[in-house]
Amino acid sequence: MKFTTFLHGDQPRLGLVDGDAVIDLNAAQPQVPSSLRAALAAGTDLGAAARAALASTAARLPMAGLRLAPLVPEPGKIICLGLNYFDHAKEGGREKPEYPWFFFRGASSLVAHGAPGILPKVSAKFDYEAELALVIGRRVPRHVSQEDAPGHVFGYTCFNDMSVRDYQKRTPQWTIGKNFDGSGGFGPVLVTADELPPAAAGLRIQGRLNGEVMQSANTADMIWGVAETISLLSEVLTLEPGDVIVMGTPAGVGQARTPPVWMKAGDSFEVEIERIGTLANPIRAEA
Amino acid sequence: MKFTTFLHGDQPRLGLVDGDAVIDLNAAQPQVPSSLRAALAAGTDLGAAARAALASTAARLPMAGLRLAPLVPEPGKIICLGLNYFDHAKEGGREKPEYPWFFFRGASSLVAHGAPGILPKVSAKFDYEAELALVIGRRVPRHVSQEDAPGHVFGYTCFNDMSVRDYQKRTPQWTIGKNFDGSGGFGPVLVTADELPPAAAGLRIQGRLNGEVMQSANTADMIWGVAETISLLSEVLTLEPGDVIVMGTPAGVGQARTPPVWMKAGDSFEVEIERIGTLANPIRAEA
Repeated sequence: MKFTTFLHGDQPRLGLVDGDAVIDLNAAQPQVPSSLRAALAAGTDLGAAARAALASTAARLPMAGLRLAPLVPEPGKIICLGLNYFDHAKEGGREKPEYPWFFFRGASSLVAHGAPGILPKVSAKFDYEAELALVIGRRVPRHVSQEDAPGHVFGYTCFNDMSVRDYQKRTPQWTIGKNFDGSGGFGPVLVTADELPPAAAGLRIQGRLNGEVMQSANTADMIWGVAETISLLSEVLTLEPGDVIVMGTPAGVGQARTPPVWMKAGDSFEVEIERIGTLANPIRAEA
Repeated sequence: MKFTTFLHGDQPRLGLVDGDAVIDLNAAQPQVPSSLRAALAAGTDLGAAARAALASTAARLPMAGLRLAPLVPEPGKIICLGLNYFDHAKEGGREKPEYPWFFFRGASSLVAHGAPGILPKVSAKFDYEAELALVIGRRVPRHVSQEDAPGHVFGYTCFNDMSVRDYQKRTPQWTIGKNFDGSGGFGPVLVTADELPPAAAGLRIQGRLNGEVMQSANTADMIWGVAETISLLSEVLTLEPGDVIVMGTPAGVGQARTPPVWMKAGDSFEVEIERIGTLANPIRAEA
């Protein structure tokens, strides 16, 4: 099953993907809340609702005509991993880390598929990072085992963890360089976990700048996979339905190139993950 | 004016403080949403509503009998500053920083006044940090001047930025050590900005462990004051109504003592800020 979040006026609505079209799931199945986070939090059986909607004559909206929202517009938490591919750690001159470098994003940094990533006024060092992201489906018990962890993932999508490198490095805390408005591309479509390999391992992931392949790797290359990451996080905190984990980027980022490559207004960046889809964001200068 | 958030059953409700009592503001003035964040986001005139409620015969609930919630139970963002008092930077062996060390908390880390801070299973290095926190009242324009910044603050309260020091230092990213469940004491009462000195500067702040003064400073000693912090953040991101900024801690934390002092089950920590109030959290071991 594939889900998206689209805008009806200014209101985000949970959509069920049916080929090239989208069904407004709450309109088709009124027991389903109109937001993915609320539907997950309520424990709604989204599989059953989706099957019923697909079998019905509910209106299909052509996806190409929709404006999307970030896949989960207001997650409770957006937890990101740094340095989760060894080749990317190495290109930054770092050893293989012994624990994930976690940092958080706020929802104000998110942008939808098709919406612009914003080149800030205060910096030209605007970089891309192609990443796999997951959405938690059910509250994760504290101290969950690696074996049980992946069963709490609702599904997977694409993320562009756009980074303002000079702000990221102003202090040892990366957070501020990862939280510019319009810097977190998120979507367009979530594929439910049951349609993917266990823990979404073994999927080709690619980042393309203006069509040129800049990053090319496989999710099997992650140092901490989905199961281990969730298990480690559960030592610390409660993962809630709708929480998002962004799994880190492979080698090939702009800052590690000679000379460095920075995104500029008019560029476009795509994150493609096998069997999940392609997230595209044009780059525009801050107004 | 003073506000709090209390629990009615399991539902958090915005309360207006009247002496030793609390008025359920939504019950007294039905046009006011029942959550502080929603009321601020809706642009509700909370001053007018509060004056009307205070002048009315609305029911008064004795504050001592209420269970509180974190002051804003689900902020959009919780932005924290590290090393914002020079004496605290120094006790950690650091120079005066040139830019704030920002990190984020998630709402799942918050605990109410009176609720326990949770000593985690995975670490005994559980430290306290007495801090001033502010709640944004109105959306802050990007690139706001220091002069205009404080006018967007709705009010101020106390925060205990409890820190799991070994997790904080497992990597250069502090985030994970600052996001344990039950580690962010927040409240009990917000005092509106108009009742305090400009930008809440010049207030005595104290942290007490089992009644013993461990931290004692003045908010005037912050390296980045409220105005400069908001102005710097607005270069990067949009601060929304209900967003929270936690302003950093002065010297005297447990890890900087010889020998180090860690909080243990049965302890109690209080954060008192002049003209704002006292936040108290007992410490309990994770179940």
